[in-house]
Amino acid sequence: MTLSLIDTLLTRRQRLASLINFPAILWSGNSSPRNFPANVYRFRASSHFLYFAGLSLPNAVIRLEAGKLELFIDDPKPSSALWHGVTPTRDEIAVQIGASAAYPMSELASRVDGAATIAVQDAATWTAQTQLLDRMVLPQLPAQGIDLELAKAVIQLRLIHDEGALVELRSAAAVSVKAHTAGIKAVTTAKTEASVRAAMESVIIAHNCQTSYNSIVTVHGEVLHNEEYHHPIGAGDLLLADVGAESAGWAGDITRTFPVSGKFSSTQLDIYNVVLAAHDACIAAMHPGVEYADIHLLACKTIAEGLVDLGILRGKPEDLVEKDVHAVFFPHGIGHLLGLDVHDMEDLGDLAGYEEGRERSARFGLGYLRLSRPLRPGMLVTIEPGFYQVPAILNAVRSQYQYLIDWERLEQFADVRGIRIEDDVLVTQTGADVLTKALPATPPEIEELVGAG
Amino acid sequence: MTLSLIDTLLTRRQRLASLINFPAILWSGNSSPRNFPANVYRFRASSHFLYFAGLSLPNAVIRLEAGKLELFIDDPKPSSALWHGVTPTRDEIAVQIGASAAYPMSELASRVDGAATIAVQDAATWTAQTQLLDRMVLPQLPAQGIDLELAKAVIQLRLIHDEGALVELRSAAAVSVKAHTAGIKAVTTAKTEASVRAAMESVIIAHNCQTSYNSIVTVHGEVLHNEEYHHPIGAGDLLLADVGAESAGWAGDITRTFPVSGKFSSTQLDIYNVVLAAHDACIAAMHPGVEYADIHLLACKTIAEGLVDLGILRGKPEDLVEKDVHAVFFPHGIGHLLGLDVHDMEDLGDLAGYEEGRERSARFGLGYLRLSRPLRPGMLVTIEPGFYQVPAILNAVRSQYQYLIDWERLEQFADVRGIRIEDDVLVTQTGADVLTKALPATPPEIEELVGAG
Repeated sequence: MTLSLIDTLLTRRQRLASLINFPAILWSGNSSPRNFPANVYRFRASSHFLYFAGLSLPNAVIRLEAGKLELFIDDPKPSSALWHGVTPTRDEIAVQIGASAAYPMSELASRVDGAATIAVQDAATWTAQTQLLDRMVLPQLPAQGIDLELAKAVIQLRLIHDEGALVELRSAAAVSVKAHTAGIKAVTTAKTEASVRAAMESVIIAHNCQTSYNSIVTVHGEVLHNEEYHHPIGAGDLLLADVGAESAGWAGDITRTFPVSGKFSSTQLDIYNVVLAAHDACIAAMHPGVEYADIHLLACKTIAEGLVDLGILRGKPEDLVEKDVHAVFFPHGIGHLLGLDVHDMEDLGDLAGYEEGRERSARFGLGYLRLSRPLRPGMLVTIEPGFYQVPAILNAVRSQYQYLIDWERLEQFADVRGIRIEDDVLVTQTGADVLTKALPATPPEIEELVGAG
Repeated sequence: MTLSLIDTLLTRRQRLASLINFPAILWSGNSSPRNFPANVYRFRASSHFLYFAGLSLPNAVIRLEAGKLELFIDDPKPSSALWHGVTPTRDEIAVQIGASAAYPMSELASRVDGAATIAVQDAATWTAQTQLLDRMVLPQLPAQGIDLELAKAVIQLRLIHDEGALVELRSAAAVSVKAHTAGIKAVTTAKTEASVRAAMESVIIAHNCQTSYNSIVTVHGEVLHNEEYHHPIGAGDLLLADVGAESAGWAGDITRTFPVSGKFSSTQLDIYNVVLAAHDACIAAMHPGVEYADIHLLACKTIAEGLVDLGILRGKPEDLVEKDVHAVFFPHGIGHLLGLDVHDMEDLGDLAGYEEGRERSARFGLGYLRLSRPLRPGMLVTIEPGFYQVPAILNAVRSQYQYLIDWERLEQFADVRGIRIEDDVLVTQTGADVLTKALPATPPEIEELVGAG
């Protein structure tokens, strides 16, 4: 760990101390078993722990008070050297992360009085949290009392990324860009979605990173959370790839949609340009003080305008958005917070995404929006407009929107099932900085990249 | 699902019915959350469920009685079509897997009387198991009563692979072979372990498979469960890769060790040939009726002989094995059962690995042996002898084995940190069939493959 990272960690701990007047105890969590106890999913420490501890230590706990960190972790058993090699001792780790004291786990029970915590996802750990703190600590349970105060304080810090975070986030963005570049290049020779996924994830693995979420690599982009990769790739298909790298725990999250043949059809190009216009308009509108929900509405309006121009929708764009007609084709939110989690701090429900006092809209066109706050410098969000022809939605609204949608005209766009363009955008003092800008998004650039395989 | 797979499933259910006279209820399990509830590790159904149901269905339950299967699963919510596309209905799945009846999950509570089960790994599911069956069902808890009877019956079936299983196991072996081939070819241009891992896992991803366990790809083969990939690769290094593909839930598991330069040093070649001799001797000795523990001892003896010949050990090989001196360099077992799980049925502790009435030895050289049964046709095991210079072990035994180990001679083999050669071997009526034999293991073949990058 470099000195500057230690400085980052010390500053985070000091800032937390200025926001709460009680101790906070954060667990890193345990590995989750896959099909038997010794065959575990690759360990990933809880994000709140990572934020203050800086190291992905399995089965560790930190106690934060007055800017100091106490580490609780058991030294490896002597037999562990055979299986896991020589691993750092408790005291070595303590120095590495700038702890003021370090104890075996058995000491934790005597240091929990009056402490707040945040539930960790794995059952072994939240069971330990519940037992030690003598109150229900469950990931599904909304935080209360000092736990809620702690959650709000952590959100206040994590919402605005510090320099230490931005170094890692830029690195995650860079690896994600490389992965997409490899995938777009590979598509001309790939036979199935799985091959393209392999080209992209192999870049992530080669950088010793993990994916920050399960990749979506599909010719059926209209299935929003498609996690199947068996479809063959046809020459006329668009391939939608939503893939991100996680670097030292920090997430990247990019989507590109590209023509398998290397050439968009004219209908694909038309719709792609509508989505791209929304993408560009949203990024151009990002400034401190602007409401993210307004960025979302700008995307809706830009998409509605584009679809009116193409003759797919009928009416005034503003009216169409008011009636949620745009949401037939763009049914999700314009994006979300990005940080240690790909939906940053979503383990706390909408506490991070929604400004205090706000809650999700019941409107079809707004209910999936994951973020409703004014933008502030240091916030990192995704901007990810899309266009999808989801049979389930189209069938459901056919009679309701018989006249507002030109169904005959729409049929001409049958070769556009799903398009999404997603970048990671940092709010700056003067506007926005696209961390993933090294990856092209315009049709000529995309077509050129497909040809470069 | 093909007709022959349905036949396989029906036969398995009939066989189970002939072994138990009570109903069995098996849960598939739920996805485990990673850093927040919506960001889950890729779902993998419980192996016992997969064995009888044939499909990896999240959050499903089957009830087996008298050869019939009842399916319990909830139909997807209408809103799920947006996120997950059109998924099969309960009735469609029922037809697919040859169920005799299918119900919503709410019906399960009325069908649990007198039923046995096997604990699933994820907490949400074992909590549901515990509640519905009104007794503690925990993965850590040894099975008792009818649960134990069920476990033994399932083991009896799963120990001997049927044709349906072998089709998938051969497929997993074939993909694993391709992954290793790609890794060995890539090593000359790779700069880090992570790059070689990427080359191997990308083959697995491209075949739409998963890894059956966390890959080991390391220049520090002496760390047995090394799951770090950041080390640079040096020209004089050996790279040890223990990587396996999982195909439709069935596991492959291969290890190869190869010289980064494409050429073994003479000391590396000497030790490699000792390990290879053990590997070949074990496979040649495999026949129905032979004790797997004796195969392990044969490996120990062959390794001891080889190390005596090289002047590293002093004494008679038999005596050295009796004194566990071989275990200084070969501290693990010769292998394990392989099937749906990479350590097949290890979720049941040693119930599957150890013949009834046997238990693990307290001896250093035998305690890590995961399998102690007579071989029977249809059993699939790994054969994976190795040689490691583990500093922790060498330091611990230095005075104890001052004369039995020629420590000066050993120093000449400093460029051999860890070697393992592992194949997947099926017991046949007449001997053994190496499912992974398409991947070469001899030094000239390995050297040729490294050059083919």
